[in-house]
Parts: sequence; structure tokens; C-alpha cells
Amino acid sequence: MQFSKQLSGKFVFVLFGATGDLALNKLLPALYNAVRFNPSLAQGHFICLGRSITDEDKYFATVKSYIEKVSQTDFDADIWQKFRSLFSFLKLDAQTAADFDILKRRIEALQPDVKIYYLSTSPKIFPDIVHHLTRTSLNEGNTRIVLEKPLGSNLSAAQKINKIVQNAFPEDQIYRIDHYLGKESVQNLMALRFGNRFLEPLWNRIHIRSVQITIAEDIGISSRGAFYEDIGALRDMMQNHLLQLLCFIAMEPPYALTPDAIRDEKLKILRSIPLYTHDEALKNTIFGQYAEGMINGQAVPAYLKEAEVKENSKTETYIAAKFLVSNWRWAGVPFYLRTGKRLPKKLAEIVISFRSVPHNIFMPPLNAEAPNKLVINLQPHDDMRLYMAAKPPGATSQLQQVSLNLNFTKQLNQRRPSAYERLLCDIIRGDLSLFVRQDELEEAWKIMTPLLELKEKNPDILEAYRAGSWGPESSHVLLEKDRAKWHEEQ
Amino acid sequence: MQFSKQLSGKFVFVLFGATGDLALNKLLPALYNAVRFNPSLAQGHFICLGRSITDEDKYFATVKSYIEKVSQTDFDADIWQKFRSLFSFLKLDAQTAADFDILKRRIEALQPDVKIYYLSTSPKIFPDIVHHLTRTSLNEGNTRIVLEKPLGSNLSAAQKINKIVQNAFPEDQIYRIDHYLGKESVQNLMALRFGNRFLEPLWNRIHIRSVQITIAEDIGISSRGAFYEDIGALRDMMQNHLLQLLCFIAMEPPYALTPDAIRDEKLKILRSIPLYTHDEALKNTIFGQYAEGMINGQAVPAYLKEAEVKENSKTETYIAAKFLVSNWRWAGVPFYLRTGKRLPKKLAEIVISFRSVPHNIFMPPLNAEAPNKLVINLQPHDDMRLYMAAKPPGATSQLQQVSLNLNFTKQLNQRRPSAYERLLCDIIRGDLSLFVRQDELEEAWKIMTPLLELKEKNPDILEAYRAGSWGPESSHVLLEKDRAKWHEEQ
Repeated sequence: MQFSKQLSGKFVFVLFGATGDLALNKLLPALYNAVRFNPSLAQGHFICLGRSITDEDKYFATVKSYIEKVSQTDFDADIWQKFRSLFSFLKLDAQTAADFDILKRRIEALQPDVKIYYLSTSPKIFPDIVHHLTRTSLNEGNTRIVLEKPLGSNLSAAQKINKIVQNAFPEDQIYRIDHYLGKESVQNLMALRFGNRFLEPLWNRIHIRSVQITIAEDIGISSRGAFYEDIGALRDMMQNHLLQLLCFIAMEPPYALTPDAIRDEKLKILRSIPLYTHDEALKNTIFGQYAEGMINGQAVPAYLKEAEVKENSKTETYIAAKFLVSNWRWAGVPFYLRTGKRLPKKLAEIVISFRSVPHNIFMPPLNAEAPNKLVINLQPHDDMRLYMAAKPPGATSQLQQVSLNLNFTKQLNQRRPSAYERLLCDIIRGDLSLFVRQDELEEAWKIMTPLLELKEKNPDILEAYRAGSWGPESSHVLLEKDRAKWHEEQ
Repeated sequence: MQFSKQLSGKFVFVLFGATGDLALNKLLPALYNAVRFNPSLAQGHFICLGRSITDEDKYFATVKSYIEKVSQTDFDADIWQKFRSLFSFLKLDAQTAADFDILKRRIEALQPDVKIYYLSTSPKIFPDIVHHLTRTSLNEGNTRIVLEKPLGSNLSAAQKINKIVQNAFPEDQIYRIDHYLGKESVQNLMALRFGNRFLEPLWNRIHIRSVQITIAEDIGISSRGAFYEDIGALRDMMQNHLLQLLCFIAMEPPYALTPDAIRDEKLKILRSIPLYTHDEALKNTIFGQYAEGMINGQAVPAYLKEAEVKENSKTETYIAAKFLVSNWRWAGVPFYLRTGKRLPKKLAEIVISFRSVPHNIFMPPLNAEAPNKLVINLQPHDDMRLYMAAKPPGATSQLQQVSLNLNFTKQLNQRRPSAYERLLCDIIRGDLSLFVRQDELEEAWKIMTPLLELKEKNPDILEAYRAGSWGPESSHVLLEKDRAKWHEEQ
């Protein structure tokens, strides 16, 4: 978040996997906006690499159609021309050495000050790409490499990828994407906590009873069955997004807004989470898979009936877990994390439940569980609500719940760059703050290891939940054991 | 605030001064609503006393016209009939003993369990009334006496009135009205502070930089020149309303919602305010008087040109003062109080300014004075705003100010009794919580004594201010000396 850092010099931005879903749906539309709103990006040249398209004009016609779709009425032909003039296309197969030699000549002809490699491909071919970049010395000099998740499917796989990449690039040139960190609302968590006086004094075990972090999706796996079968909710969401959000909530104030000051604090949090034994993991984790049900009045099929899903698949589409952060600030405060597909709605929110008042002089409160809660909505709306008790009119001392509300989009009435646009600009500017460092990534996998092993050894702990419900029955029991409830049940 | 207490038995409510402005404009319309919404009030009988009207029907026709005016479209003929059936009228002159004998027979005929005397008269005749009530033994048994401000014009006058009343009635049967305490928003201050977890940890010298309490009026003195000449802003507003609000903001949590638990805590605050020497009063108090000016685009005359105002009058229409509350919680935190007529708008608000963050990792804040402020509006709107810093969209670390908002009227969407209706019901129920105890009253006068003496000895410290401005120039200097600013200037 060294926001003041400015791009200097010419850069070349090489996009591996430029014909893939992510590139077409997210990265190229985000780059279109980045070019539109950041004149300095005109100093760069972008090379799109792909195996499956050979015709440059045809490829960019496809790109244009995606950008038009995303931009809708906002599409501007002049901007498109400007954007297009910065791009070229190259057919490249990651297994074909000669293709990299061509790439090298193309890059060298541009004489860039900075070379950026964005790997928007399957992680299976990361080693090949890195090998050939190294072989051709394209890894040398002022370079940056950007890695998309999933970065490994477990700790050892992640370590293996990290090792390969780190052999070719120093850590401070590696940008591991967790696109959640590009969301405005996630960055606002730091401003909220460290730019204001009124939260930090409350932000600890003395005043906070529990923290809930939910990322819910109402969609199923749509056409991504084959991909999702190997992944599941733990790897797709909890290992990265949920743990990263936990870090932003739990971290100590960094001494500065520099990448490593921030990432050091996040790492300390990850290291403070006790690694579960098998029995602890069993007690504190819920795996679920959606059965058929109704969402928004529409009948939807069970996960097992989705295309490309194995019969008797044990892949979880829901995971909930309770973690502790064992340090002075958080000792004893449960952090409840959950994510799932086919839940009642699309939602990402953080719920901070405060303890009750130490001595209640009013009539028994209407909500003994949590009279005060801070609810930070990350999506679909970027807003914040602080629930409090107030006296309703008249002669009563039975308090009622009201809330202080803040709609960020409304009050900060400016264009909000997408998460990818923000992160792409950071990469080009060379700001690592919102990217995941290797030690963070590996620590997150360590925390997940007992859960992965539990699931592997006991595939039958998977519970079915009705599509359109808030997850398996035992996800509610998990909190009831602590006399707590998920936010939407209160 | 023993809200659960219910009225038991028959009562008689005797209203002295029933033909006066306060009775017609406020008390009787409030009683009309009290009767309407509290069926138990039908157990009572109300006797209106007045010297100047002799015809009962004519008097109640006047009462009806006032209630119609206040109720507007909400006036209900059936309710009026019910209300009217509970009322009778008696001509009474406070100097005429025989009138009290008649009153006594009227009351005894009703055989009430509780006798309530509401003195809505000039305090000059309080002694006469109390004398005759005592002489006729009407002060005996289960009685309550209600006193309207101003209760004295200084400490010794207040003590004298208190002594007279206390000779006839025990303290726990004396209801001293400060109608500000009947406001929903003032009662909500207690709910806000002690019904919630998130404010008390911040509510002290460590986190709070200053407190501002403003009661502003845009009107002048209208037709009340003769009355106001003897009173001024200090006696009219600061000695009572402003100091009472200060108590609710500064008090420790009471152990219970009982009248004396609350009033003991308020008293402790008043006793914690150091009494000023002459020099300290001079340094910390600003007296002002409005000159001609513009309000809402209308030219308005100077105070000195108002009807019944003496030539060269030195009566203040504005007062601002800084006080300290010298205890562990508040040591060193300035409380700035101000009130005035012909200010830019009608407004009552409390502004809690928090200190800056101890270590700022963001770009220099937009508002170094007070990045976080809690603004509690008591009128004209009953709402609350918590100002905070947030990150605007995009790659910047220059935070912007936003606010969490709560509109009580909107969220607690119920009928809001007027302050007088609330207090009248409390009197009938016998709940003293929202009334001022003798020791509180005298302590407030003690705090005001150095200010009164300062003004008396140095009438020329009075500064003129333009009508429609926020008061005399030196009221701004008062805060600038502490590197602070009044809220509306920030």
C-alpha cells in the first residue's frame, strides 16, 4: 500500500494463458480500465500468449467482445483503440522451447526497463514456464512474476512451486494473487482499524466475544465441475480468502504501510493459530456438500448431479471451521470461518460480536447473545453497520436494537476499480502490499493440513445440506457449543 | 427511570397557573396526549387553578383551542370529551386564604390516594402557595409537588425556595422540572452509554479530547423581553439544561436505574467541576448579546431594540464556558458549553471529539483536529453520527471522512411523547429519575456563582455578536487557545 509509488520507465507485460477464462473475463477487462484511467500505462506493451488461437485479429475481436460485455454501455471505441495499440499476440506453447526464443526476441526488441510475467495458466505448467524463462534468461534483471491461485493443493505442493519460482526470481519480485485483497472493502479494513481512534481500544478479547467471517455463494459450480472436483471449498476459499480476511481483522497495527510491515503482521497471526490435532480438527470443522433444493424459488440439482462430477464424489462445497488466535490480544476469542456454494445468497461479511455490558441496568436485553455487533459487508454491498441498543420512545427501559449505518459506495462517491484492476496496477507500479508472501502462503497451508488430512482419512464426515440453506446442521451445532449463533440466525 | 412502576390508586392533579403560557402551550396539550395514550390516567382528576378567568366553559374552550392548535389534524373530539370529563376549574388567588379552603374541600370530596401540586406560576408566589398548602394541611399524606424553573436566580435564592418547599414536603416528594430531561434523546444518552458495550471503553480522557454541548436558538426573545431581562442565557439555559446534559455525558454508570442512583452520579459530576476564581471565570467564560443581523435571509433587530428591553441592557443572550471535570475519568478534558439566541439555527447537539490515532500510518489526515467524532443531535433531529476515516477507492492512502449514521426517529418508528408528556406521566407514576434533586440544583448554582459575580462586577465584558452568527468573536478564541474548534467550523 505504498500508494505514492509511481511507475517509472517502460515495461512489458506478458500474459500467459491469455485465452483462458480468467484472462478474458477478468484480467483483460481490468487492463482495459487500467489503461483508461492511468495514462502512465501507455508506457507499456502487453503481449498476450496462448496456445489455442493463432490469428491475432480474431483473438482481439474475442477480447473486445468480452470487454464490451463487461463494460456494457460504458464501452468506448477510442479507449479500445488506445488499449489495442498497446497489445500484441503471440502463439506460445509452454512445452515448446522455440516459442520462448521467439518471445525473447519480441521482448528484447521492446527494450523494456521492467519485464512482468503474469501466469494465468494451470499451475501444472508453472514449472515449464519458469524453466524456459530461466533458460532464456528472461528471468534476469528487473522482472516481476505473478502467480494465480491455486498455488498448490497442499503444503508440500505449494512448497514445491515456491521453490521452483524462487530459484528463478527473488521473493520480492513474486506477486501471488489473492484477488480478495484487491477489493476496496478489504483495503478499507486497515483504514477502519488503523486510521480511526474508536475501534482499536475495543479490538481485543476484553470486548470482543467472537468473530465470524462468511463468504457465501448462491451459485453452484456451473460448468466448472471437472476443475472443482479436485479443489473443493477448503482449497478454493478457506485456505486463501478466509484466512487472509482473518489476518486483516486480527493483525496488530503495522509500523508502516509498507509491504513487509503489513505482511509480517499477517504472518504473525497465521503463526498464532494453533495447528489442530486430528481430534481437534474433527471437533472444529464441518464439511458439507449441497443436495438438491431451492434457490430464489428455483429448483437446483444436487452437487452429485452436476456435469463432470464423479458419482459418489466426496468433494466439499461447504466448509466451516472454528479457529483460535493464541496471542495476548485474541486468546480465547473464537474465529468462525465458513464458505459454501448454493447458500441462500451471495454475501461476504465479517461480523464482530462484542461481549455484553458487564452490568446491565436496563430490562433484560432483547438480544442477550450480542447486543453490539459490527457487521462489515464486503459484497454484494460495501457497507458497515454497528448494531447498538437504544431506548424506544416512552416510559420503558426495555431497549431495542438499532444500527449506525455507513454505505461506503454512497459516501465515497467515486469510481471503484475492480479488485483485478487494482492489483494489476499495483503489479505494474511494483507494490507488493496486497500480495501474499511465500511464508504466509505456506503457513496458511500448515493450518489447513490437519483439516485436509481429516477429510482424506474420513471422507464420510461430509454432510449433505439442502441447496438454499445455510449449510449442514452441524455447522449450527459448532457455534451452539459456544452458545453462539451465525449472524443470520440472530 | 423505574419504568416498570405503575400508577396505583386515585390521584388528584392540581395545576397552579393553569391560565399561563406554559400551561396552555405545553402542559395541557401534553396532558391531553397523556390521557389519550395512558388509560390508567382516567383514575385521576385534574383541577386547573387560575386567577384571571372565572368562567369554566370559557376557560376550557381556550384550552381546547390550544390543544387543537398543537394536535393539528390529530385532534380527536372523543378524546377531548374524555379529557374534559377529568378536568374541573377553580378560580384561585395565591394570596387569598379562603380560595385554598375551597380548594381543600374540592380535593377532599374526591378522596384521592395521591395529591399532586404542579406550580406553573412565577416562583415569586411559590412561598404563598406552599404556605397555604401547609396551613390547610394539603401538604400532608401522599403528596407530590412539582416546581417549574427558574428555581431561584442564584444560589441563595434557590436555597431559600428549597428551604420553604422542604419544610412542607420531604425531598422525595419534590419534582423539580428540567424539561430537557424529558426529551427522548436525553434519556437515550443513558441507553447509549450503559446499554452498549462499545462506548464505555472509549469514554474517558485517554480517548476523548474534548466535549462540546451546544443549545442554539435562531429565535430572539419574541415577546418575552420583560421576563428575559431579569434572566439571561446563563440562568435560562446554562445553569440547568447545559449542566444537566454535561452530567449525563460525564457521569459514572449508576448501579441501578433508580432515581437516587442516577442523581447521586450526576451530583458527583457537578461536585467534580472546580469552582472558578474571578480570574478563571474571566478566562473561561464568554458573555454575548445579539446585535442586528440576518437570519434565514431576514433582517432582525438587535436585542437592545426588542420590546420591553432596557436601554443599555447588559443581559446576555449568549454564553459560552469551558469547564473541567476533575476526576480520574475526565481529568484534563475540556467541556465546552454554549447557548444563545439568534444563532444561525435551532440546534441542540453534543459533540464528542476523540483524540488522534497514536501512530498514523496513512497520509496526513484530512482533519487533524478530530478524525473521529461522535455527534449526538437532540434537536431538531434525533440522530447520531460517528465520523470516521475511510479509504477512498483507488490507489491512495489519503483517507477521507465518512460517517456512520443513525436516525432514531426512523429506526424506532413509534410515537414519541413530548418531553412534558413524559415528565407529567412520571410525576403521576411517582418516578423521580428525570427530576432534579435539591443538592444537584444547589451544586449547579455554586458552579454558576463565579460567572454570575464576574458578570455583575464587569457588565462590560458583554460582547456584541451579529444575529445569525455563531456568537461573539472571543467564543472562537476560547477554543483556539486549546487548538480546538466549535463543531460547525470544522
